[in-house]
Amino acid sequence: MLKKIQQSIDNLYSEMVEIRRYLHQYPEVSFQEFKTAQYIADFYEKLNIPYERNVGGNGVIATLKGGKPGKTVALRADFDALAIQDEKDVPYKSKNPGAMHACGHDGHTATLLVLAKVMKEYQEDLVGTILFLHQHAEEETPGGAKPIVESGALDHVDAVFGNHLWATTPLGTIQTRNGVFMAGTDRFEITIKGQGGHGAYPHETKDAVVIGAEVVSQLQNIVSRRVDPLKTAVITVGKFAAGNTFNIIADQATLIGTVRYLDTEIQSIVREELERVVKGICLANNAGYELNYGVGYPPVMNHEEETKLVFEASQQVSEVQSAVEVAPQMGGEDFAHYLNHKPGAFFFTGAKIEGQNYPHHHPKFDINEKSMPIAAKMLIGAYFAYQEKNK
Amino acid sequence: MLKKIQQSIDNLYSEMVEIRRYLHQYPEVSFQEFKTAQYIADFYEKLNIPYERNVGGNGVIATLKGGKPGKTVALRADFDALAIQDEKDVPYKSKNPGAMHACGHDGHTATLLVLAKVMKEYQEDLVGTILFLHQHAEEETPGGAKPIVESGALDHVDAVFGNHLWATTPLGTIQTRNGVFMAGTDRFEITIKGQGGHGAYPHETKDAVVIGAEVVSQLQNIVSRRVDPLKTAVITVGKFAAGNTFNIIADQATLIGTVRYLDTEIQSIVREELERVVKGICLANNAGYELNYGVGYPPVMNHEEETKLVFEASQQVSEVQSAVEVAPQMGGEDFAHYLNHKPGAFFFTGAKIEGQNYPHHHPKFDINEKSMPIAAKMLIGAYFAYQEKNK
Amino acid sequence: MLKKIQQSIDNLYSEMVEIRRYLHQYPEVSFQEFKTAQYIADFYEKLNIPYERNVGGNGVIATLKGGKPGKTVALRADFDALAIQDEKDVPYKSKNPGAMHACGHDGHTATLLVLAKVMKEYQEDLVGTILFLHQHAEEETPGGAKPIVESGALDHVDAVFGNHLWATTPLGTIQTRNGVFMAGTDRFEITIKGQGGHGAYPHETKDAVVIGAEVVSQLQNIVSRRVDPLKTAVITVGKFAAGNTFNIIADQATLIGTVRYLDTEIQSIVREELERVVKGICLANNAGYELNYGVGYPPVMNHEEETKLVFEASQQVSEVQSAVEVAPQMGGEDFAHYLNHKPGAFFFTGAKIEGQNYPHHHPKFDINEKSMPIAAKMLIGAYFAYQEKNK
Amino acid sequence: MLKKIQQSIDNLYSEMVEIRRYLHQYPEVSFQEFKTAQYIADFYEKLNIPYERNVGGNGVIATLKGGKPGKTVALRADFDALAIQDEKDVPYKSKNPGAMHACGHDGHTATLLVLAKVMKEYQEDLVGTILFLHQHAEEETPGGAKPIVESGALDHVDAVFGNHLWATTPLGTIQTRNGVFMAGTDRFEITIKGQGGHGAYPHETKDAVVIGAEVVSQLQNIVSRRVDPLKTAVITVGKFAAGNTFNIIADQATLIGTVRYLDTEIQSIVREELERVVKGICLANNAGYELNYGVGYPPVMNHEEETKLVFEASQQVSEVQSAVEVAPQMGGEDFAHYLNHKPGAFFFTGAKIEGQNYPHHHPKFDINEKSMPIAAKMLIGAYFAYQEKNK
Repeated sequence: MLKKIQQSIDNLYSEMVEIRRYLHQYPEVSFQEFKTAQYIADFYEKLNIPYERNVGGNGVIATLKGGKPGKTVALRADFDALAIQDEKDVPYKSKNPGAMHACGHDGHTATLLVLAKVMKEYQEDLVGTILFLHQHAEEETPGGAKPIVESGALDHVDAVFGNHLWATTPLGTIQTRNGVFMAGTDRFEITIKGQGGHGAYPHETKDAVVIGAEVVSQLQNIVSRRVDPLKTAVITVGKFAAGNTFNIIADQATLIGTVRYLDTEIQSIVREELERVVKGICLANNAGYELNYGVGYPPVMNHEEETKLVFEASQQVSEVQSAVEVAPQMGGEDFAHYLNHKPGAFFFTGAKIEGQNYPHHHPKFDINEKSMPIAAKMLIGAYFAYQEKNK
Repeated sequence: MLKKIQQSIDNLYSEMVEIRRYLHQYPEVSFQEFKTAQYIADFYEKLNIPYERNVGGNGVIATLKGGKPGKTVALRADFDALAIQDEKDVPYKSKNPGAMHACGHDGHTATLLVLAKVMKEYQEDLVGTILFLHQHAEEETPGGAKPIVESGALDHVDAVFGNHLWATTPLGTIQTRNGVFMAGTDRFEITIKGQGGHGAYPHETKDAVVIGAEVVSQLQNIVSRRVDPLKTAVITVGKFAAGNTFNIIADQATLIGTVRYLDTEIQSIVREELERVVKGICLANNAGYELNYGVGYPPVMNHEEETKLVFEASQQVSEVQSAVEVAPQMGGEDFAHYLNHKPGAFFFTGAKIEGQNYPHHHPKFDINEKSMPIAAKMLIGAYFAYQEKNK
Repeated sequence: MLKKIQQSIDNLYSEMVEIRRYLHQYPEVSFQEFKTAQYIADFYEKLNIPYERNVGGNGVIATLKGGKPGKTVALRADFDALAIQDEKDVPYKSKNPGAMHACGHDGHTATLLVLAKVMKEYQEDLVGTILFLHQHAEEETPGGAKPIVESGALDHVDAVFGNHLWATTPLGTIQTRNGVFMAGTDRFEITIKGQGGHGAYPHETKDAVVIGAEVVSQLQNIVSRRVDPLKTAVITVGKFAAGNTFNIIADQATLIGTVRYLDTEIQSIVREELERVVKGICLANNAGYELNYGVGYPPVMNHEEETKLVFEASQQVSEVQSAVEVAPQMGGEDFAHYLNHKPGAFFFTGAKIEGQNYPHHHPKFDINEKSMPIAAKMLIGAYFAYQEKNK
Repeated sequence: MLKKIQQSIDNLYSEMVEIRRYLHQYPEVSFQEFKTAQYIADFYEKLNIPYERNVGGNGVIATLKGGKPGKTVALRADFDALAIQDEKDVPYKSKNPGAMHACGHDGHTATLLVLAKVMKEYQEDLVGTILFLHQHAEEETPGGAKPIVESGALDHVDAVFGNHLWATTPLGTIQTRNGVFMAGTDRFEITIKGQGGHGAYPHETKDAVVIGAEVVSQLQNIVSRRVDPLKTAVITVGKFAAGNTFNIIADQATLIGTVRYLDTEIQSIVREELERVVKGICLANNAGYELNYGVGYPPVMNHEEETKLVFEASQQVSEVQSAVEVAPQMGGEDFAHYLNHKPGAFFFTGAKIEGQNYPHHHPKFDINEKSMPIAAKMLIGAYFAYQEKNK
């Protein structure tokens, strides 16, 4: 049956492309994906597959119950876009100013919708139940995965698999990793509250530039001295903004940054130390501060058994030339919430366009659409492998 | 004669106020003071005092040759305004959006014009020659004083006196200082040229925030360790701008600041050390940089004899309750260029409005107009004292 | 035969203890182990096993050629002691003041000697050849392993195994790791060359305390910003010494430290960046410096096949309750040089004394002597497994 | 009479030298000057001038009441030596190992004793009363001046003058300054209490080297940002000691330093900020600390009238070629305590040996003995001028 399904997927490649390009032209940013959700719902309506809307927000979950008993497995595709202006020169360029599918979620959605259409044909012989899990708001914390999990919609699910089309990985390559596959990502914003004044009279002020600089410097010590050298932690201050002109001492400095970690114990240490540094340096300078530490997505922790199934599935997909266990990726994904709730695995499907190398979130980002049928085959392959393993 | 002159000044107080308020409503920023220069020229035209226009730019110099032989002494008033939006609620509020006489130069000009009108009456009996030196562009380097000096317009002058109405000094107080009275002021702009990248992959970047922070930190050592503790130096980084968002490592950091000094030897040390710090820290981080060090106005170095004459003059002005030698002021003034060329002295005339304390350059800045006749009497008093001393 | 050998080892336990305690009383520090080498040579002399002395220094290699053809496998024990004063209160306490076997090398030697004695009995039936590799000078770079390898003494060897008795690991536990098992360790010494002077006149000096502090601070950035967060690097300044008294500015600061890494690419990056930081900071401060970067032992990189054999061997040793793959250890070992030359594996044999927890190099360090027969069985077990695998 | 006195002083020059050289051979360090005090007492005993011993410690005060009424004026000489090994090659080299008159106090004492001997001759005609104030323990806080003042011994005194022979100032030059002449000097000792450990495991420690370095770095900000640029402050960390070896993280760092100031308001600011920095940085690093801030001598604040009298006196001394008002000296002196209690002035008498330039406290320090009669004439000259002025 798998071979036939793969053939069916290939047969619908042009529809897959059509859907993806349609969505690409009408991107909607996180939490605003109303029309996209409608589009997805309409699709399932036409397929006559029952679905639920507004799951945890704009989420849509369709359920295809197979004719034979088995496990319930969710396959996830996210569908939100980014607040980026599309700078590509292609016919399917975004028509929504300031919004763009610059991360491939349009492709994820097209992949999953067409897979659903295919599987509807095989419903009678299907073992187990497929949940087509269309998630909104992956790009922006707190994300859509968390409320979907909290809604209970996955409580009866046995496992969950997810795919990311990856534009910098060659077509035909699958990448994943047992255990931690993607990093936990937090965001912090520190406002140093000094006291401004004339640049010639520093003693009458509390110079926020100098204090902010000391904070940046001290934050380096957390990674170099407070974190186990065998563990991973990144603290990046991406933005430092203080003062307006050369001869006025800044009353305030704003430091905005990200923390990356693979391990929640490290997250705790980094957060605690970061708070301590800000507090201590401000005390040393008699300045005030405000610190907002925003906990983002936890690390994506693939489960051992399900990761193996992804590798197994890859062997059944003829377009896959290599399936490799890669080092942890430092980017984040709220797929992590599913994996903290249920067994499962997340993987990358190579989607590189030859001769092009725009990374995700780049204004000229695009995917190789040939990756979509591969992803569809990987997802359904993992589903079959899971049913086989757990029958 | 001095008493009669003082009386004449008082008689013209309302004209003085009228002129000042007119100028206040039509401020022009540095180097753009075309209409103001025209206004001044027209004034001398009407007085029938010969004048020269476009001296070193928009400068206007009128010459009143007295009936009796004597020295030639310049009295200086600057006439440019600032790029500040006037936020006062007064009838004479600025009518030029984004421009404002927030430093009292309107008052300086009114003072000098009315003094010229008065002195025209006494021309026959006047010993020596008065130059009414109306200078443009004091607020912005390279300033108007330098090109005026370079034009040779003051080569035949024996001495020069100047006044600043000072809004935070009480009415009736004169402040000056023998030797260094106001600081030298330079401006620097440092651009750290790192390499940007994703916040999770610092090792593929050169983090301009971290490098910029180190530069700020090291600059402190110049004042604390490289400058004679008995000397004065200030290095202020007024603005630190790097990066746009939390998870992208900044490729560039811009640090803009000011250096203040009272002594050109210290200026040299600070500049050399600043260049060294930037070079060394960037080397330590394998980053590039661009450094623009803009030499501004030198310190205002009052001459001993002429400073004494200012104090002498103050004793002849009944409104002056106290004339005090103050500590050096850390602000700068391009009057310094005149004093590097010719003997002279610069002084502050208290112009505080009771119950109000907006500093110079504040959007609600205003002066006590009663300070204007005091300033006029001080200037002409210094002139007389100089002639007396040097006859 | 293995079972019989194990029995023979157990039978000679008291001799093992005796030898170890003798050596413990007469420790000799690295490169000075003349009597210990003599003791070892005498032992083989008595056993009538041929040996070579002065291999790469004080090294001793005995060769037991089995009666049956097979591979040649070296089993290594190091025999130098540390410059530490023994503070234990035991009958076998060190009798050499200021020297102590505070790392268990006495136990390694006793283990290997007794194993040799046992194997001599089984020579006829033995498959392959055993090299009993007694290495001097493990504790001090450049160490004994490097010259032994360079001497060519191991050129004809097929594999090498080594054991470390580990006093903080419970008896009955074997620890090792495929790939990098122990860190690379370098040592650096930075001398900042400033200029001293009176504490009240900093501008006449180059303050080595301040410059040294900046170097320490900047070194943190290497780990936090220049090294891949997924890789491991440690830079520790263990000693900072500058100045003698409160009111004299130090002319010199000495910073001594260690670098740890698991990967020679990281070693290169850290070394290059460390040199850059010192150069840049000293340039920023117009100071000189001297930098000695001493490359120490490379990482201990266990070979995959031989590591498996160690785990296999552990299953044949009844005293071993658990054999675990552990995280990389940050300590170093010059066993690394053997593994860069030939296949092999290094492992820890738990040697903890219940209720005691003095770490290696502690003045009260001791081992649980019961670990010695376990280590002997592990070494000969790995030998047998290797011959079996490679026959 | 003054001329005759000057002649008498010259006549006793060889005795002056003799006394000075005797004292030079038998130096006693601060608070241990028992024999020196005895020597002084014996001298007055022989002169038949009444004296008091053990004033505020080892102090000796002799009182010469003149035959004519007048003011009571103290002339001060300190008599303690330093814990320095004399390295000069002269016949009068120190015979007390590890002790040396390396600051000229032997000369001060000889000067004052011989002056007393001279003045005894003129007692009858003398206007007012001279206190010959021989002070112990100037070199070491809390010093001898404070307890002498506290003893009440100077309560009836009208003024006090003091001289320092200054070995780097040419013979024939007198230096002093109205207002602050010498700096206030404090001493601090900071102990950072981190947590030690193995250099490869920084996360299990609190690295005192890194924390200490941050403290040094932050202390720079006090001078650069917290102190009025027109005021003077020096913070020097003269000694930084942490750790013993390259691969052990230091548990403790000791920073010892000095603070110099000219103004007690600045002292308060620096002390407060220093405490704040240490507290804040240690908080930022979760470390403990101990801070001992030792208040030393306050600034030497010469009184205006008495400083003028010193200049007047200098005009009566033929050997004085120049008497100059110098910039404040950054060294300290407990003469400050007298000036906080009574009017007076302190001055330097040039004592440079041609072709030699060993600074005070140098093991080869020596004075030009010809400076002694000049100092004696200056002291008695100031006394006469004071009596004249205040009659």
